[in-house]
Amino acid sequence: MKYLFEYNWKVRDEWLNYLIQVPKEELIKKRIGGLGSIQETLFHIVKVEHNWIRDLKNEPISSLTYDAKTYDLDTLKKLSEEFRQEVKGYIDSWDGSKEFKSLHLLVGANEIRCTYGEALMHIIAHEIHHMGQLSIWSRELGLRPISSNLIHKNIMLKH
Amino acid sequence: MKYLFEYNWKVRDEWLNYLIQVPKEELIKKRIGGLGSIQETLFHIVKVEHNWIRDLKNEPISSLTYDAKTYDLDTLKKLSEEFRQEVKGYIDSWDGSKEFKSLHLLVGANEIRCTYGEALMHIIAHEIHHMGQLSIWSRELGLRPISSNLIHKNIMLKH
Repeated sequence: MKYLFEYNWKVRDEWLNYLIQVPKEELIKKRIGGLGSIQETLFHIVKVEHNWIRDLKNEPISSLTYDAKTYDLDTLKKLSEEFRQEVKGYIDSWDGSKEFKSLHLLVGANEIRCTYGEALMHIIAHEIHHMGQLSIWSRELGLRPISSNLIHKNIMLKH
Repeated sequence: MKYLFEYNWKVRDEWLNYLIQVPKEELIKKRIGGLGSIQETLFHIVKVEHNWIRDLKNEPISSLTYDAKTYDLDTLKKLSEEFRQEVKGYIDSWDGSKEFKSLHLLVGANEIRCTYGEALMHIIAHEIHHMGQLSIWSRELGLRPISSNLIHKNIMLKH
């Protein structure tokens, strides 16, 4: 589980650094699918991961909301690093004992019931899914996407 | 680990059933990014998962290669089910003891070194990544994508 968080963070950092070459108007341009823009997708990934960890800790989620002007790449990098410290603290202390513990949330009118393990797996799958969307959009921009190949990220062994 | 395979299989089956409504020419149409078409992406997902399991078992990989005429949705569903039986057998017997065991492969001229654990995580991330791409392409077709939300798939608990 921890390795997949590590993988996602590496991929995310690579995207955040890589996209500096892309004009800002392309980053905020409305596109088909996903969150609608590259920048908003990155904000969403960062925020959703943090929200879920706050839910698991039974603490209030952050009240930040996206706007294209505020959340440029530099601000997103800072936010990602800030939130990651907290997320990493939770993940590093995860020992699996709460895997089947029930989580019950009310999000607006929606009731969510899942286990702590499902919440962590959801965070992992959520980011990989959105990164797959970024790979299509970067090809549309004529850019080779960041590799999603986990094997090359050296997350378990230094080869 | 096993739950994430379960998740991927559920999502894959939902896509294979959902796409029946899409005209064949749209499924094989060349698109930007990924494997280039919806049908080839699905073939790739099914084949790559099976290849890796064969590698982990130190057995030869399947020699099937994609062609648009052969691998229509019906054939893909059958192939997915056939390969999954073998993959599931391996995953069901996985107890984590080989997580750090080294795997060394030669794929053409490329040398791959990773652990068994990395190979399994790679299979998981690989499918989620490509499903993210399908979600963009289905929006381009005017179709709501299959939900990638793990929380709603009931993979750990029946709520």
